[in-house]
Amino acid sequence: MRVTVLAGGVGGARFVRGVRAAMPDADVTVVVNTGDDLWLTGVRLQPDLDSILYALAGVNDTERGWGRADETERVSAELREWGAGWPWFTLGDLDLGTHLARTGWLREGLTPTQIAERLAARWPIGVRLLPMTDAEVDTQVVLADGRRLHFQEWWTRHRARLRAVAFENPGIEFAAPAPGVVAAITGADVVALAPSNPVVSIGPILAVPGVRTALAEAPRVVGVSPIIGGKVVRGMADACLTAIGVPTAADAVARHYGRRAAGGVLDTWFLALEDADLAPALVDEGWDVRVAPLWMNDLEASAELARTVLTV
Amino acid sequence: MRVTVLAGGVGGARFVRGVRAAMPDADVTVVVNTGDDLWLTGVRLQPDLDSILYALAGVNDTERGWGRADETERVSAELREWGAGWPWFTLGDLDLGTHLARTGWLREGLTPTQIAERLAARWPIGVRLLPMTDAEVDTQVVLADGRRLHFQEWWTRHRARLRAVAFENPGIEFAAPAPGVVAAITGADVVALAPSNPVVSIGPILAVPGVRTALAEAPRVVGVSPIIGGKVVRGMADACLTAIGVPTAADAVARHYGRRAAGGVLDTWFLALEDADLAPALVDEGWDVRVAPLWMNDLEASAELARTVLTV
Repeated sequence: MRVTVLAGGVGGARFVRGVRAAMPDADVTVVVNTGDDLWLTGVRLQPDLDSILYALAGVNDTERGWGRADETERVSAELREWGAGWPWFTLGDLDLGTHLARTGWLREGLTPTQIAERLAARWPIGVRLLPMTDAEVDTQVVLADGRRLHFQEWWTRHRARLRAVAFENPGIEFAAPAPGVVAAITGADVVALAPSNPVVSIGPILAVPGVRTALAEAPRVVGVSPIIGGKVVRGMADACLTAIGVPTAADAVARHYGRRAAGGVLDTWFLALEDADLAPALVDEGWDVRVAPLWMNDLEASAELARTVLTV
Repeated sequence: MRVTVLAGGVGGARFVRGVRAAMPDADVTVVVNTGDDLWLTGVRLQPDLDSILYALAGVNDTERGWGRADETERVSAELREWGAGWPWFTLGDLDLGTHLARTGWLREGLTPTQIAERLAARWPIGVRLLPMTDAEVDTQVVLADGRRLHFQEWWTRHRARLRAVAFENPGIEFAAPAPGVVAAITGADVVALAPSNPVVSIGPILAVPGVRTALAEAPRVVGVSPIIGGKVVRGMADACLTAIGVPTAADAVARHYGRRAAGGVLDTWFLALEDADLAPALVDEGWDVRVAPLWMNDLEASAELARTVLTV
């Protein structure tokens, strides 16, 4: 079975671990959001790709929820002393090794796609990781006061508290899907939208020219709600949804993605048990809605969810 | 008193610490070799400038002789795991903080001169550090077999064991002295060539167009032999001298620099006590030669040497 998952960082990682556990023989490709990527002190960071890589490799910090396990911050402390970089943005030392390797390879002329393959080769992660595009199309946040920040500054420094009115990836209209992305989508038996942030994780992937067309040609596209019981599972996705006028509700996110039959991207939408009451209205609108336990508190739960979602 | 020192890394640092201790009220500028500089995994390293900075700040590793004290190598170990960068070239974590700060500032558009000023502002080092040039003119080693290596690869990886026939700084003919370098030389009461590697530390400084002319206009230029008793004090400077056909001897190095009166750069040459027998021949050739204890084993000895050299 060929499975392709569109995913952001931590939420995407949990879902993909579930996929891998549920279907060890499946040919799994993960198309990863690169909108969170940034240059910091001349070094290229790809937070979502690394989060998924570390989680699949089992070297992630499960307590903290991000970064490498057994991490230290010696270099970051020095950068603060120098007044360089973003003092509120911590670069773990082990994590920095990844960023430097990537940056060196970029300077040697490798593409992000080639680099993702090299990074993934360090551990037997069992899935293929593809950046959504090799172009740099970092997500910017347009604030209500007109200012424009890199997504990381808004998210990490300001904890998404400054009122945003739009999220943009300048230049994305000129970006191409990374090599392999379109084929992974059109050639999959199932494409799944992971329960990642719909606006700043899945949103940029869908905005890469050619991805929506590929999804329209895919045999089957399913989505898992990142909202459970009217609340975001983690992070501050509600601030992103609010900014673009989408209520923080599982049915609203479904409508935001849209049904394929009506020009959207999804065939099937998975609601949490806690949101089962939202199902009838969606069904009335023509949705194929399924209700399932969506909490991915451990690998077993993630695998059970993945099995349900992918064999629907 | 205005003193300007042309210097490489560790040997230069010891001498400059001596200058600062001997003449706390002097206005001291150090023009630092940048030929050892390199890009590694997209990050800019300036080993000589950092060595001098760390030594003057008192944060250098005095046991090992290079890098920061209390250093760790977490990031370097990761880079080796990734197969990125040069596995034989260790980047300390604290040291890497300096490199990343520098790289970030370069990417922001600051010049190496401006960056050296920022770096030096972290500690009250009491002297002004100037890179010899803002241009990138890394030293390359031409081997007997025709290969060409970055100086660091030849020096650190191969321990200067591959037979070299030339040292070149491609493009240096188009480089300009960094802002302030010419004025620091022509406006100094004394310019001193530190007992640094004559070929790959002092050599590149002298090769920057305009530096020799400035030295010709300086009131006084003195040099300290890096050879004591026919041996290099540290490092593998003898391999560099041999490559360019200069014997590893204090008089040969003097002749390599040359007397100002004869088109060279020096007025006065300081020989070690151990090399006093070389003095008469040099005197016969017209040299102003002084004999002094050249070992800089502690700060007191360095200060005593600096006092002798600068008040000659």
